[in-house]
Amino acid sequence: MKREASEEVDGVVRGIIADVIARGDAALVDYTARFDRLSLTPQTLRIADDELAAAEASCSRETLDALHLARERITSYHEQQKPQDFRETDALGVTRGWRWNAVEAAGLYVPGGTASYPSSVLMNAVPARVAGVDRIVMCVPTPDGAVDPLVLAAARIAGIDEVYRIGGAQAVAAMAYGTATIRPVAKITGPGNAYVAAAKRRVFGQVGIDMIAGPSEVLILADGEANPAWIAADLLAQAEHDAAAQSILITDSADLADAVEAAVERALATLSRAEIAGASWRDFGAIVVVPDLEGAIPLVDRLAPEHLEIETRDPERLAARVRNAGSIFLGAHTPEAIGDYVGGPNHVLPTARSARFSSGLSVLDFMKRTSILSCTPDALRALGPAAIALGTAEGLDAHARSVAIRLNL
Amino acid sequence: MKREASEEVDGVVRGIIADVIARGDAALVDYTARFDRLSLTPQTLRIADDELAAAEASCSRETLDALHLARERITSYHEQQKPQDFRETDALGVTRGWRWNAVEAAGLYVPGGTASYPSSVLMNAVPARVAGVDRIVMCVPTPDGAVDPLVLAAARIAGIDEVYRIGGAQAVAAMAYGTATIRPVAKITGPGNAYVAAAKRRVFGQVGIDMIAGPSEVLILADGEANPAWIAADLLAQAEHDAAAQSILITDSADLADAVEAAVERALATLSRAEIAGASWRDFGAIVVVPDLEGAIPLVDRLAPEHLEIETRDPERLAARVRNAGSIFLGAHTPEAIGDYVGGPNHVLPTARSARFSSGLSVLDFMKRTSILSCTPDALRALGPAAIALGTAEGLDAHARSVAIRLNL
Repeated sequence: MKREASEEVDGVVRGIIADVIARGDAALVDYTARFDRLSLTPQTLRIADDELAAAEASCSRETLDALHLARERITSYHEQQKPQDFRETDALGVTRGWRWNAVEAAGLYVPGGTASYPSSVLMNAVPARVAGVDRIVMCVPTPDGAVDPLVLAAARIAGIDEVYRIGGAQAVAAMAYGTATIRPVAKITGPGNAYVAAAKRRVFGQVGIDMIAGPSEVLILADGEANPAWIAADLLAQAEHDAAAQSILITDSADLADAVEAAVERALATLSRAEIAGASWRDFGAIVVVPDLEGAIPLVDRLAPEHLEIETRDPERLAARVRNAGSIFLGAHTPEAIGDYVGGPNHVLPTARSARFSSGLSVLDFMKRTSILSCTPDALRALGPAAIALGTAEGLDAHARSVAIRLNL
Repeated sequence: MKREASEEVDGVVRGIIADVIARGDAALVDYTARFDRLSLTPQTLRIADDELAAAEASCSRETLDALHLARERITSYHEQQKPQDFRETDALGVTRGWRWNAVEAAGLYVPGGTASYPSSVLMNAVPARVAGVDRIVMCVPTPDGAVDPLVLAAARIAGIDEVYRIGGAQAVAAMAYGTATIRPVAKITGPGNAYVAAAKRRVFGQVGIDMIAGPSEVLILADGEANPAWIAADLLAQAEHDAAAQSILITDSADLADAVEAAVERALATLSRAEIAGASWRDFGAIVVVPDLEGAIPLVDRLAPEHLEIETRDPERLAARVRNAGSIFLGAHTPEAIGDYVGGPNHVLPTARSARFSSGLSVLDFMKRTSILSCTPDALRALGPAAIALGTAEGLDAHARSVAIRLNL
C-alpha cells in the first residue's frame, strides 16, 4: 500500500515537472488555480514588496523581536562554519589547494498551512546568506490566498525579497528549471509534503537538494535527579510535531520512568495539539529503563537520534561518548525547543537514523569546493613517471601520453 | 527509450535488493553465479588475505611504487581537509559548538572489467582513512573469477583487508543492509554501471552515498601561446574514458584552434583506445574560438566543468574569476592526468554541471557533524521568552511549555 501510494505520488510529480518545463509560467498559474484555488497571472506569481512589508507590519512587535534575536544568534553561530581556502607549495614545486565558493542562487521551499514555520525560513536562509549566496528565492503556497504573515516577515528579516506564492512539485520544478518569470537556482532546500519531497528527489542532479526529512525525533537520557515534569514537557514538544514523531526516554531510574509516564498523561490533558501529541506518544513513544546510562550509549549510536537531550549530573561525560546524533542538548536547562528557535545551531537535522552518515544543514550546504593543482616543469618531471606508469597500467594510454609528451618521453 | 531502459534497470535492482535483504549470503551466492559465472559459498565471498598478498606480489615494482607515491600524496592533501571542532560560550552563558565524527564504516564499490581502476581505490579509500573511519569494506566483482591484481594491491596499499568478490546491485545491497557474512556500512562510495548507480539511489537513506557520476569532461582555456600537441593530448586523455566523455577547447586564437584540430586527428591515429576517443571527440568534442578569454568565463561557469585546464600566460588571473568547476589545472605543465593519479587532490569530481552546487570527494564525505547546545539557568532565562513567543506564534504550545515550565512561567 505504502509503496503504491508513493509510486502514485511520483507519477503525478513527474507529470507536473514535465509540464512546468514545457509550459513555464502558464503551468504554474494552472496548478496554483487547481491546487490552491487561487487565480494568478505571471505578473502576480511574485509577492510584491509592499505586500511583504504589510505582512511584517501586521505582526506583533514581540514576535518580530524574537525573530530578529533568532536571526542574530543563528547568524553568529553559522559565521563560524565558513570554510577556509587552502594553498601550499610542496617540496617538489607542486602547488595544491582548494577554493570555496557559494552557489550562485538558492531556492527555499516553505510549506503552506499549519506546517508553515517562520523559524524554518531563518534556519534555511541564514546559512545561505552567510555562505554568500547571491540570490535567495522563496516559494510558499498560499491556499485560497492565505499565508502566515510571520513567514513573510521572516523572509524580510532574512533579507529575502524574491518570494513567489506557489507551492508543491510545481514550485520545485520552477526553481530547478526556471520559467520566464522565475530564474533557476542551483540548490533547493526546505521541508515539504510527499509531493514536494518526490519533486526534490526528481530534480536532484539538475540542482542540489538538502536531505529529505522524516518525522522528528527526540531521545532523552536522564538520571534519577532529572525533573519528571520537564522531561515530560520535552517528550511532548517533540510529539506535537506529527503523529509519526518519536519521543524516547532512556533512564537508569525506574522511579523517574514512572513519574515521567504520569507527567506525560497529565500534561497531555491540557495541550492544544493533544490529539497529535497523544497519537505520537501512544504509537511511537517509549520509556526504556536500563541498568546504567553508559551502557546505553551503543543503543543511542544505533538509533542515531535527530535530537539528543542529556539530563544527568555530568552530561558532558556521556555526550563525549556519543558518536551518532544530529544535535546534543546538555543539561536540564537546555530544552530542545531552545535549539528550534534561538540557540543558534541549525534546526534542520538528520532524521531516521541518518545521523550515522549525515549532518544538519550548514553553511557548507550552500558552498562548493574547487580543487587547484599547478606543476612547474620540474614538478612535472618529478611526478610524471609515476602518472605514466599508472595510466599505462590502467590501459589509459592517452592519459600516459598527455604527460609523456610534455617530458619528451 | 532511455527512460524505459532506466525503469527496467530500476525494477531489476529493486528485486535484487529485496532478495539480498530476505536471503542474505544465499542471494549473493546466487547472483554471483548468474552474473559473474562464479561459484561461491558464504565462506568464499571474502577474498582471503593470502590471495590479496599474492595479487600484490604479482604486480610490477614500478607500478606498486607509483601507487605508494600516489597514496602518500593523496593522504597529505586530504589531511588538510580534516575539519575543526568548535565550542564557544557567549555573553549570555550559552555554550554552543559542534563536533565532527567519522562514520563508523564505509563501503567502497569497485567495478570489474576494464573500468576497474586502482587509482580510484586510493581516491575513495584514502579520504575515508584520513577521516578516521573504523572499518573500510571493498566489493569488486570478479567475472569468471578474474580480477585486476593491481586493484587488490591498491586495496592493500590503502589498508583495506576486508574485500568481497561480489558486484552489481547485490554488492550495494549487502553493504547497505548487511548479511550474515558482511556487516552493514553507513556510507557507500565508488563508481559503477547503471545497476550499481540505481542500487545506490535506492539504498540512499538507509546509508549515505556519494554522487552518481556521469561521463567525464574536460574544458581547456588556452591562448595562442599554448602547445597544440599538448592540448590535443589532454583533449584525447579525457575522450578515451568513454564514448560519452566530453572534451572542449575554448581559445582566443584561431591558429591554435586549427593546429589543435589537426593534432587531435594525428594523435588519434596512434591511440590504443582510438575507437572510444574518436567517437567521444566526434560526438561531443568541440573547439570554440572566442574574441577574448575573459569574456568566456560566464560560459565556463555555465558549463561548470569537472576538469578545467587553463593554459595561458597568466592562468591564475583567469582561475580567480571562475566560480563553478570541480578542479582547476593551472599552466602548461599541469596536464589533468597528473591530478588523476599523483597530484593529491581527489579525482572523484562533480560531472554534468553539478559543480554548480557540489564538490569533489573529500574527508568531509566520511564524517558528520553533531551540534552542541548548553544553557545555564541564567541563559535560559535570557533566551526563554523569545523561544516561548516563537513557539506560541507557530502554534506549537508544547514547545513553548517545555521552556516556560523551567522558568516557572
